[in-house]
Amino acid sequence: MLRVLVTGGTFDKTYDEISGRLSFGATHVPEMLRLGRSRVALAVETLMMIDSLDMTDADRERIVKRCAECEERAIVVTHGTDTMVETARALAVDIREKTVVLTGAMIPYAFGSSDGLFNLGSALSFAQVLPAGIYIAMNGQCFPWDRVRKNKEAGVFESR
Amino acid sequence: MLRVLVTGGTFDKTYDEISGRLSFGATHVPEMLRLGRSRVALAVETLMMIDSLDMTDADRERIVKRCAECEERAIVVTHGTDTMVETARALAVDIREKTVVLTGAMIPYAFGSSDGLFNLGSALSFAQVLPAGIYIAMNGQCFPWDRVRKNKEAGVFESR
Amino acid sequence: MLRVLVTGGTFDKTYDEISGRLSFGATHVPEMLRLGRSRVALAVETLMMIDSLDMTDADRERIVKRCAECEERAIVVTHGTDTMVETARALAVDIREKTVVLTGAMIPYAFGSSDGLFNLGSALSFAQVLPAGIYIAMNGQCFPWDRVRKNKEAGVFESR
Amino acid sequence: MLRVLVTGGTFDKTYDEISGRLSFGATHVPEMLRLGRSRVALAVETLMMIDSLDMTDADRERIVKRCAECEERAIVVTHGTDTMVETARALAVDIREKTVVLTGAMIPYAFGSSDGLFNLGSALSFAQVLPAGIYIAMNGQCFPWDRVRKNKEAGVFESR
Repeated sequence: MLRVLVTGGTFDKTYDEISGRLSFGATHVPEMLRLGRSRVALAVETLMMIDSLDMTDADRERIVKRCAECEERAIVVTHGTDTMVETARALAVDIREKTVVLTGAMIPYAFGSSDGLFNLGSALSFAQVLPAGIYIAMNGQCFPWDRVRKNKEAGVFESR
Repeated sequence: MLRVLVTGGTFDKTYDEISGRLSFGATHVPEMLRLGRSRVALAVETLMMIDSLDMTDADRERIVKRCAECEERAIVVTHGTDTMVETARALAVDIREKTVVLTGAMIPYAFGSSDGLFNLGSALSFAQVLPAGIYIAMNGQCFPWDRVRKNKEAGVFESR
Repeated sequence: MLRVLVTGGTFDKTYDEISGRLSFGATHVPEMLRLGRSRVALAVETLMMIDSLDMTDADRERIVKRCAECEERAIVVTHGTDTMVETARALAVDIREKTVVLTGAMIPYAFGSSDGLFNLGSALSFAQVLPAGIYIAMNGQCFPWDRVRKNKEAGVFESR
Repeated sequence: MLRVLVTGGTFDKTYDEISGRLSFGATHVPEMLRLGRSRVALAVETLMMIDSLDMTDADRERIVKRCAECEERAIVVTHGTDTMVETARALAVDIREKTVVLTGAMIPYAFGSSDGLFNLGSALSFAQVLPAGIYIAMNGQCFPWDRVRKNKEAGVFESR
């Protein structure tokens, strides 16, 4: 059994046609799992729905707490890419015996051209087979939390 | 380094607007990797482009031979779902020290509603971390070749 | 008030994932109208759901009869492209005081890359403003029924 | 012969993955015409690429001037919806012998769920057959410039 914790990020941004701006509504994760015909036994839980640039220490604390308390030992966290590494670091302090994989997208799922579905398939797969630890799965790759950085110019994650 | 061997299947079916029928053209795998912004070091090679119901023993022999001879130790094979288990069985006879993950799709990638991108992200991830063996990755799950069957009524893969 | 008569054709072909073949289910026209945010006052009615190569004289008679009997004076008929001109000719014999616009698609709407939405927007627009007559609207153009042919090699409609 | 004048608006907004914001790049109109398999003889010209809330009187003057000077007598102007009616009014002052149809979208074309392709098919069709005048084509309908308003709460255009 696996748990998906939704925190927002580009992944879940949507277009508000009245305001003409990007905004957050309900998460797209269940729709994405249907599209991917996922048969992975899992529960989806929305913790927050925010841009990761707006994420506070208290928000991070909630994510860590939920990962610690939930009964699943395999967890995927959807997260904005800008501070994904920072949240991974916070998780690494407290979570020792679970496999937590953070993932996200560079393009909102609601856009036809999103990388979100690929990343979700990838993160769910890594979460099922990797040993306990905190990881970031982006671009088909998976990095331990302390060996990755976001290259903000190129918009990709890379080893460090 | 990883190798993707393309053999056709629903994954790569396309709509031929002149004949009004489904057909095969060039593989969509490179386009899917771009969409997923994959940064996995890999080579894509098209072995054949056929419906898996039309796959002969000689075709299977070519797939096995290519898996044996290529230098990569992690291989993803895109394949029609109808005889995917049969090809997995043929691979299991000869391939001992490589991780080979077969994957496919229930809906062609060229259709907007395809599960292909999710499955490709999943298969590439499993192939990077699983020990040597022959596997089928579908619906977000990964099965050893000898413990899976396709449920043709439901259109899903399940343990047996 | 406008009436949309659905007869099938490529427009409405869908992918049957169990059989791996193209087939017909319910029409996509209502979904397309929602996507286009259409506010045109209209009724959608499915007359048949067939490939136009399979259309018989009796089927054509049903289409002509329905166009004659319905109360609307502006009608859009969705139709397979292969025999669209033939049905237009049958309509021209009997329908004198209504504007009937036949349209279709070269790629099924269910494929992401379909021309269907463009053609539907076009056909609905021509039907609202053209004088009584039988027309074919494809590729953004509109032809009187007796001055058009399908170029089967190129997959386009052109003047003759 | 028809001319498409591009001015920006929601129609052409795209997602900038580095900044995480909506922005403008090159117009999507040529790609949309390819997707719709348009065979309408036309030229596409980008006049500006802005949000219509940022459009100044000088910008409007440029649009009017270009409509007056170009040799085509049928013109489609792609435009943000917020001030589309205002630009139509400016055009009505000076353009007397041409058919000018303004259109746009509530959802960017780059989003899978856009109404843009439907609206473009519709606007091109109205522009080919309506008599000289200034019109707004949205939601499958076409309004003379002085009998339409945008209902900002509902995000639709309606008669007034």
